[in-house]
Amino acid sequence: MQEFVPSGVITLTTDFGHKGVFAGTMKGQLLKRFPDARVVDLTHEILAHWPEEAGFWLARAHKYFPDGTVHVAVVDPGVGTKRDIIAVETQSHLFLAPDNGLLGSLVQKYEGRIHRLDMTRLDRFGIHKPSFTFHGRDIFAPLAAELAAGRINAGDLGPVTETIVPRWLEAPQVKDGAISGVVITADSFGNLITNIDESLISGIVQPVVLAGGRQFAVRETYADVKPGEYLALVNSFDVLEIACAERSAAERLGLGRGAPVSVRPLD
Amino acid sequence: MQEFVPSGVITLTTDFGHKGVFAGTMKGQLLKRFPDARVVDLTHEILAHWPEEAGFWLARAHKYFPDGTVHVAVVDPGVGTKRDIIAVETQSHLFLAPDNGLLGSLVQKYEGRIHRLDMTRLDRFGIHKPSFTFHGRDIFAPLAAELAAGRINAGDLGPVTETIVPRWLEAPQVKDGAISGVVITADSFGNLITNIDESLISGIVQPVVLAGGRQFAVRETYADVKPGEYLALVNSFDVLEIACAERSAAERLGLGRGAPVSVRPLD
Amino acid sequence: MQEFVPSGVITLTTDFGHKGVFAGTMKGQLLKRFPDARVVDLTHEILAHWPEEAGFWLARAHKYFPDGTVHVAVVDPGVGTKRDIIAVETQSHLFLAPDNGLLGSLVQKYEGRIHRLDMTRLDRFGIHKPSFTFHGRDIFAPLAAELAAGRINAGDLGPVTETIVPRWLEAPQVKDGAISGVVITADSFGNLITNIDESLISGIVQPVVLAGGRQFAVRETYADVKPGEYLALVNSFDVLEIACAERSAAERLGLGRGAPVSVRPLD
Repeated sequence: MQEFVPSGVITLTTDFGHKGVFAGTMKGQLLKRFPDARVVDLTHEILAHWPEEAGFWLARAHKYFPDGTVHVAVVDPGVGTKRDIIAVETQSHLFLAPDNGLLGSLVQKYEGRIHRLDMTRLDRFGIHKPSFTFHGRDIFAPLAAELAAGRINAGDLGPVTETIVPRWLEAPQVKDGAISGVVITADSFGNLITNIDESLISGIVQPVVLAGGRQFAVRETYADVKPGEYLALVNSFDVLEIACAERSAAERLGLGRGAPVSVRPLD
Repeated sequence: MQEFVPSGVITLTTDFGHKGVFAGTMKGQLLKRFPDARVVDLTHEILAHWPEEAGFWLARAHKYFPDGTVHVAVVDPGVGTKRDIIAVETQSHLFLAPDNGLLGSLVQKYEGRIHRLDMTRLDRFGIHKPSFTFHGRDIFAPLAAELAAGRINAGDLGPVTETIVPRWLEAPQVKDGAISGVVITADSFGNLITNIDESLISGIVQPVVLAGGRQFAVRETYADVKPGEYLALVNSFDVLEIACAERSAAERLGLGRGAPVSVRPLD
Repeated sequence: MQEFVPSGVITLTTDFGHKGVFAGTMKGQLLKRFPDARVVDLTHEILAHWPEEAGFWLARAHKYFPDGTVHVAVVDPGVGTKRDIIAVETQSHLFLAPDNGLLGSLVQKYEGRIHRLDMTRLDRFGIHKPSFTFHGRDIFAPLAAELAAGRINAGDLGPVTETIVPRWLEAPQVKDGAISGVVITADSFGNLITNIDESLISGIVQPVVLAGGRQFAVRETYADVKPGEYLALVNSFDVLEIACAERSAAERLGLGRGAPVSVRPLD
């Protein structure tokens, strides 16, 4: 495994949206402990209470950041309950998230060393009486600052563990030459982003995509069809996407998170 | 009073939203005068023309930032009229805002030294012909940069004042053992955030919350009830909040800014 | 022409919105190549597939940033097709955008030296196999990092060119003493922002603004009328704007992008 050497960069991935001061105060906490932190919002618009989307993006986006980046993900419907917090070290990056399945797909894809935070000894890190409802500010940000500053490492958080809460979704299934997956989310253009990786499709000579009772041909880029026409494509994160050129496929098809998508060879 | 020693951190709180280049050009102005500024968006989604929400968040969020932070708040329906600009120095932080009530609740809570900007002498700061409609970019950002860089201090802005425009809302009232407050705003999850501080509720042995003709029990965290069930809780900013687990209480109850909320002992 | 000396500041202007990790991964790429970059979001809420709005803002907002800023604009419905990428050096700033008309209005206003990126030699910059659908991350960000770090200059990108794709809209027309323009976009308050520059209006002694079958008087600032009343004004970016005090003119008038607006003398 490549070693994790902190770069000073920290990314934030949450479902907090931009109302209120939630992401803002996390950054305040980061700067309080680590004034030289360079903080990047990966996104704060994960679909509410949908950890799978956060894990999906982190597994595919981390490589565009410097080695040594600390990625903090807080999509956390169980905040304040007994759910744990874990740190995953892999690919020269470090991921900090609730143990609620969020990092399940990342671990499935890359493996890595997992540490379980010892919640009974947070005072060691100067964390006293965290709130019940905002661990992002009170636990995740302080720890991320210490990790990114290189003052502690993942091993200081708690013991190594092998068993984490599994991901929310099964990986796409391949059966009789057809692939079954689902829509993970839609982007701001309304493009429907699935969990079907290019590697699965590349074995099919003339792939056809099915979703919402319709059939889509696979093209290279949006402008390969006329505005208003549908297409499927392998997007820039190497997963299958269903789009409508210069329109919102999500809105026009009425599809979103969790909608089934399949790929099969042309008859 | 603790002294203000600039940390180089500047926060921005506005109702500009993310359309257009309004927040962006404020940051340009900050970097033009103070290249080492570390600028944090506290939020740009204050409810439009609602200074009370900006003051509410600043009073409760500033302590999560380093001492020496300059907080700029621009929620300013009276921009371009004769309304003044004030700076409040308190708790080792500095707050810059229109004198329109925005900082009323902060001053009520913490007191502090208040300076009134001398608008007739802006040229001293290299500010010439500010626009009528965007003081955030033309006055607030340049002054915040100078203050955060330590080249001027609040006293250089203008004379000390005692009298500022009062806050928009009365503080919550306590009468016959019951507390009356209001909803200040809703967050992105649709949780309804009130102006009723924990300290007011803690005196009530079995508090019950009333709003929109319904009654809510007080719990510790969202996951204490099933998805779709309502609850009240003291949130991470130590104020009362009405929520619906994994749903939007704001949408389902049809409540928002200004809605009355009361707390009384269980009968 | 003033020389471009990089300041280390990079701005981003896109129509990506805040869903998904698109803007975030562009920042990752910038920091990977240029760890000291100071990145500012100018806006990610350009109206989808509307390059004219991006160019409009850049032409008017760049001067609020330090000289030597690299401005990256990605509003790019033709991504992955044969459309080119250009760099415009003017006013001591550098602009990088698809050659799809986005920078047409900037060049019309300021002229400048234009270089056309040689797409066949991207490997010189360590850019290998860019995706078809996300040049922002795979081409624009790496080049912006190199330019902002001062390791390459615009001339290294490719040959000088005179001919670029023209802007999407004609400049406003003046005929028989009346000016005809259009709405470019609306801001978060619902103010309708037009492409009619102050310099055009200043020649009219008592200007009256017409749009959507209504007539608007020109005032100085929003608070010059009562909440709920309409007004026109020259805004802080020196263009004509139609507003409704403390309300959304866009919503109430049902007007938006492309709506015709005219100005004529009072009868």
